[in-house]
Amino acid sequence: MSESSVNRDLARLAGFGARGDAVRRLAWSDANREALDWLASRFEEAGLEANLDAAGNLVGRWETGSGDAVVVGSHVDSGPEAGRYDGTLGVLGGLAAVELLKAKGVEPRRPVWVVAFMDEEGVRFGASMLGSRALVGQDVGEYLGRRDADGVSVADEMRRWGLDPARIGEARAIDRVGAYLELHIEQGPVLDRAGEEIGIVTGIVGMVQARVRIRGEANHAGTTPMEGRRDALVGMARAALALREEALARGGTATIGSVAVEPGAFTVIPASCEFSLDFRIGSREEFDGLPELIEATVRRACEPEGLEAEVELTDADPPVEMDAAIVAELDRAAAAEGAARRRMPSGAGHDAMLIAPHVQTGMLFVPSRDGVSHSPQEFTEPEHCELGVRVLARALETLVG
Amino acid sequence: MSESSVNRDLARLAGFGARGDAVRRLAWSDANREALDWLASRFEEAGLEANLDAAGNLVGRWETGSGDAVVVGSHVDSGPEAGRYDGTLGVLGGLAAVELLKAKGVEPRRPVWVVAFMDEEGVRFGASMLGSRALVGQDVGEYLGRRDADGVSVADEMRRWGLDPARIGEARAIDRVGAYLELHIEQGPVLDRAGEEIGIVTGIVGMVQARVRIRGEANHAGTTPMEGRRDALVGMARAALALREEALARGGTATIGSVAVEPGAFTVIPASCEFSLDFRIGSREEFDGLPELIEATVRRACEPEGLEAEVELTDADPPVEMDAAIVAELDRAAAAEGAARRRMPSGAGHDAMLIAPHVQTGMLFVPSRDGVSHSPQEFTEPEHCELGVRVLARALETLVG
Repeated sequence: MSESSVNRDLARLAGFGARGDAVRRLAWSDANREALDWLASRFEEAGLEANLDAAGNLVGRWETGSGDAVVVGSHVDSGPEAGRYDGTLGVLGGLAAVELLKAKGVEPRRPVWVVAFMDEEGVRFGASMLGSRALVGQDVGEYLGRRDADGVSVADEMRRWGLDPARIGEARAIDRVGAYLELHIEQGPVLDRAGEEIGIVTGIVGMVQARVRIRGEANHAGTTPMEGRRDALVGMARAALALREEALARGGTATIGSVAVEPGAFTVIPASCEFSLDFRIGSREEFDGLPELIEATVRRACEPEGLEAEVELTDADPPVEMDAAIVAELDRAAAAEGAARRRMPSGAGHDAMLIAPHVQTGMLFVPSRDGVSHSPQEFTEPEHCELGVRVLARALETLVG
Repeated sequence: MSESSVNRDLARLAGFGARGDAVRRLAWSDANREALDWLASRFEEAGLEANLDAAGNLVGRWETGSGDAVVVGSHVDSGPEAGRYDGTLGVLGGLAAVELLKAKGVEPRRPVWVVAFMDEEGVRFGASMLGSRALVGQDVGEYLGRRDADGVSVADEMRRWGLDPARIGEARAIDRVGAYLELHIEQGPVLDRAGEEIGIVTGIVGMVQARVRIRGEANHAGTTPMEGRRDALVGMARAALALREEALARGGTATIGSVAVEPGAFTVIPASCEFSLDFRIGSREEFDGLPELIEATVRRACEPEGLEAEVELTDADPPVEMDAAIVAELDRAAAAEGAARRRMPSGAGHDAMLIAPHVQTGMLFVPSRDGVSHSPQEFTEPEHCELGVRVLARALETLVG
């Protein structure tokens, strides 16, 4: 197969919102709009009908054959100091795969759409995956009033783009979709460490987030013997290590990202310690047991120290499985390309997470150097981007054949 | 022996700087001055010559006999929301002991001084134990320019009190002192828990304070497998528990009072964790080994996690031993009173710490209910205050006999 457009297009798209080495293309920003305008012209150049839908998703349609469309895509919005691969590879790789099929003379029996979903990142308004939510018909009304740090709302930006917030429901298109494929960088170190080229995603892990509060007793650091202290920091330390063991035992992840200790003085034993917990796991059954596991683990760490613990769940997103037939097809396609590959879960959320409950869905990873993403240091080898496009094109050809 | 003045005087002194249940008698404040003026009149009522020295220490002299004085005392300044016993018991108990000796017709062969030291607490200016430092002849010049939160300096306050900051060196009096006794509340729970009445202090523990910085690598909480993470929080948790074990193994204390985690987000593995460490221990030999022990313990916790650690010592006060003959004498005096007693270290610093390197020094503890101090909840049973005075008076009688 000849070289695809993907690496050239990744370099071009990185120019929209470029800030030195970094990319800043926040959802609904001018840089986001300029990128979509350029992308629309690229879609048209490739023979696709390009339209912005009612939620700001850019959809490029190859209206051929009949029945439900096979959709390929991802997003082109970014965080504040991002790289050039996260999201964009799925959109530009989808476009490149379509071009490969066209160049080969493939005549799909079903429509093929390439989609750039609006605001996957959610960093500006806290409205992550707005576009894919709207496409599957979720009620996204509550997001419209959300404001960014400057007081600008999602609805304000929609109007500025010529969209009517009241009509966002019209973005619902899932009834005309039959399958979804997303190519993405791994954003983790697994493929890079193993020297593998393709990850076939088996599912997106479930995530429970919680705030844990441990309460003990403040006392003088010098005059209070170790025996009989009720030191909230010690409870946190025990809980942190125990939660880590539980995650390791289950192949999940447990992360304590923030900690606050009160009263917070050199010579005072901590009376309270509050920390965040992010616990992710692939199995639905284990996900369902997570709140109880977290609570029990924290209590087991605290009770021998005479400490009280409270676990407040702040978020719980169940794991999502990819379609088994599509997983098998992606595996065959990767094998046909001679790719060193593995099946693996995705530890991060993606637009595919929203679509998978509705239609056959699959995801494909290519390696991220050192596992870095959301950073100007984000990097995927050009040959891995090419390889991803070829695997995607093979699977797409089968799905539309 | 008849009832002493101590409980009545504790109640009176608590009126100076009273704020509801609490006492706020910061060093050099008007409340501090009014308390000292009242105390000077009480000293004179008891037949002592009362004078404010060049450092703001109130000294009540029973100029009798000859040679070096036996000094009893403590301080009457307090923290911002204190109780009525910390410090004051040693001053009023010293006065009460003198009155008991006078009532008994004792004629001391050495002078006896009762001293209320200036600014033991150090909370207003960060100049703790200013008065006892000046009395032993330490150069306290660096404290004079220190300012409180309102910009008022120690020197400003000295001038307001009619003292000349340039002449603070004249407070040096250690050459005329032969022995020092201090009665104090325990400020910890040991006696209260054991149901004991008197603690005979064997020494004041040494203290090392440090800032520990652990550096790892920030990464995505979802996409970074547990294996191979460099999670600074995990290093802190391991170090906290290991330092605790080292303290327990040596009969010392280890306290992590404050913690800061960066970047501090739910979904980001901590790149760095900085915490305070307060490690106290009684043995001089073990104290000398503390910096190395702390460094080695932190490194042992961090290295298996691929983390870097840095330990910055911010303070190191060596342990101080009480005089063996005085310890024995206080023990005999407590036995003569039939007191349930133990020998014990002091985990907190006291004026006695400054004086012990110069002259024979001893300290006596009475129980603090639930170990509470520096709080309006601070409480010592009146009969324990009385008992402390009687033990002090017995020891004083022997020392001056």
